[in-house]
Amino acid sequence: MSERKAAGRRRVTQQDVARAANVSIAVVSTVVNGKSDTLRVSEQTRARVMQAIHDLQYVPNVAAQSLAGGRNRIIGAFTYQRMFPWESGDFYYDFLLGIEEEAEKTGHHLLLFTGARNEAGERSIFNRNTNVLEVADGSILVGGRIDGEEIRRLAEEGYPFVMIGRRNAAGGNVSWVAADYAAATQDVVDRLHELGHRAILMIVGSRTHETIVERREGYASACARHGLEPRMVAFAAPNPDVPEATPCLADEREVLRFAAEQGVTAVIAESSYVAHRLYETAQEQGVAVPGALSVVGLGDHGDRQNVLAPDPAVTVVRTPSRLIGATAVRMLLRRLESPARDGGTEHLRLTCDLTDGTTLGPAPGFR
Amino acid sequence: MSERKAAGRRRVTQQDVARAANVSIAVVSTVVNGKSDTLRVSEQTRARVMQAIHDLQYVPNVAAQSLAGGRNRIIGAFTYQRMFPWESGDFYYDFLLGIEEEAEKTGHHLLLFTGARNEAGERSIFNRNTNVLEVADGSILVGGRIDGEEIRRLAEEGYPFVMIGRRNAAGGNVSWVAADYAAATQDVVDRLHELGHRAILMIVGSRTHETIVERREGYASACARHGLEPRMVAFAAPNPDVPEATPCLADEREVLRFAAEQGVTAVIAESSYVAHRLYETAQEQGVAVPGALSVVGLGDHGDRQNVLAPDPAVTVVRTPSRLIGATAVRMLLRRLESPARDGGTEHLRLTCDLTDGTTLGPAPGFR
Repeated sequence: MSERKAAGRRRVTQQDVARAANVSIAVVSTVVNGKSDTLRVSEQTRARVMQAIHDLQYVPNVAAQSLAGGRNRIIGAFTYQRMFPWESGDFYYDFLLGIEEEAEKTGHHLLLFTGARNEAGERSIFNRNTNVLEVADGSILVGGRIDGEEIRRLAEEGYPFVMIGRRNAAGGNVSWVAADYAAATQDVVDRLHELGHRAILMIVGSRTHETIVERREGYASACARHGLEPRMVAFAAPNPDVPEATPCLADEREVLRFAAEQGVTAVIAESSYVAHRLYETAQEQGVAVPGALSVVGLGDHGDRQNVLAPDPAVTVVRTPSRLIGATAVRMLLRRLESPARDGGTEHLRLTCDLTDGTTLGPAPGFR
Repeated sequence: MSERKAAGRRRVTQQDVARAANVSIAVVSTVVNGKSDTLRVSEQTRARVMQAIHDLQYVPNVAAQSLAGGRNRIIGAFTYQRMFPWESGDFYYDFLLGIEEEAEKTGHHLLLFTGARNEAGERSIFNRNTNVLEVADGSILVGGRIDGEEIRRLAEEGYPFVMIGRRNAAGGNVSWVAADYAAATQDVVDRLHELGHRAILMIVGSRTHETIVERREGYASACARHGLEPRMVAFAAPNPDVPEATPCLADEREVLRFAAEQGVTAVIAESSYVAHRLYETAQEQGVAVPGALSVVGLGDHGDRQNVLAPDPAVTVVRTPSRLIGATAVRMLLRRLESPARDGGTEHLRLTCDLTDGTTLGPAPGFR
């Protein structure tokens, strides 16, 4: 058991067995694969290797032996949120569809870690000190909420995984694929600027995770580039990540009044849900969209806008969820195929497109 | 390797190891779990057990050791059809949703065998003589098309599995969960009879797999019970499973003409798609449904009616797909929990309900 401990919590490899038995990897491989023709191994050595295999709980997988690369060809999918069962209305649906599609294409099985819980019954990667993901060759971790401690431990153990949607929350030593919300927000400001808008308001929400912060940074940098004054309003609760001077408004009606007073011609809402409500309120109040006011939603995760877009008329930034899922699978396969790169990490930001809505138009009186 | 062969292609158990090493299972368990306090095992015996473990390629799974029952808590899902990626428009979607939901509820992971193919690249359970499903504790086989030879082999090997939707195609020694289409069809005839219908026509399709045959048997037996003459018409190609005298009609217009000529007051279509088209055609021709003619679809798989019902007005038999999926998981877990029952099989037929359509009504002039 102490040997097992010495090998750490990483997946036990033939190398670990070789070290414990004080033989070369070739000898371990010979013993494990029963190829007595390639290398002669004495009975004593064989017994020592078998003992090390036992002590370290090295798992020579039956299925793996018939497949190239010694893998099970199993990709895992795990999330801390409730993701299973995943239905078409769920935010994660499209990510998983992309993962599944790419797994199928590349001849891999997909293991949904529906049962991954700790002793307390909470979704967890580690249960009684065992990494439940180990059944899969590698895994994709989906979702916003994470347990940074577990992720760090996973990375330390050298377990191959790729994160979707989160960047630095788990520390630097993690590979990820994410939507490029900063660039998407910049693109929206660029497009609005091109259409003559000079007073562009951003409605920020109360959530402040890193993809939200990215959007705000994208907005700020694009405004700076165009020499525009960044203007933000918030809803309801004070938000520690927003400048203190940010006006706090009660609802969409107040936003419309504020916009009219301040000469705002375009509103970007972090939450697409808010963008939709603003559009509805404008229609009720007889404010022409996009004639008098352009409205764009940034596709905040919380409102599931990708799937449940209440009105396709509203122009929103669309998270390329399916593509992100597929890209994560390919990234994971690259990591599995070149274990030499284990130390390095790979990061990919994918471009978001705007939907074909009708709420983004030229500023009033623009050409 | 000969030992491995002798153990057959079943999952290698501690019992196999015990037999090969000529020791008791308790000794194998002691060696595998390292519990030297429960049973004293000499070094020679331990070496013999380790050798047998190696020869038989017995896999002492790391994850399993921390979980009750020595299982991975992985349920597999396999289909010969293209099932992955499964989207909400697919016929299999609801089955898988039920499977996933029940797996989540019972703390099991779900392994989608997206990559299960043979050397020829065809969906297959066996690849190079290896049962790819073995990575899962047991599996659920979904779908209409099957390879009877593979299923039989799977059953012979004692691999735990449950089939969805197919009954006897793979031989008697298989556990399954299926919709009770015979009872559903009988219920439809009973209901029509109750509403005064005495001339009930059935439109049969060209497909003749067992669930279709069941529907026809249900129709025939219910007609016999009520003393009604069974009346069938077919579309297009001659069908070897249908009485030779069955009239073959060109389309739904001909069905309406035929029904009017023969005094038919209700039509049951094997395919819900045909039921929908018949309803549309009746509307075009001014035939009152259900006033002059009642129309019911039997929910043929081929047309995906469960998900893509083009018009909720049409009354159809709904396959309880989600419940079937969940029931299959529970059946599989029963089989896993009581390996003693390995020889026996379990069969469950689940009741189908009628949808809340409006095309089923009293016969003309009935009370």
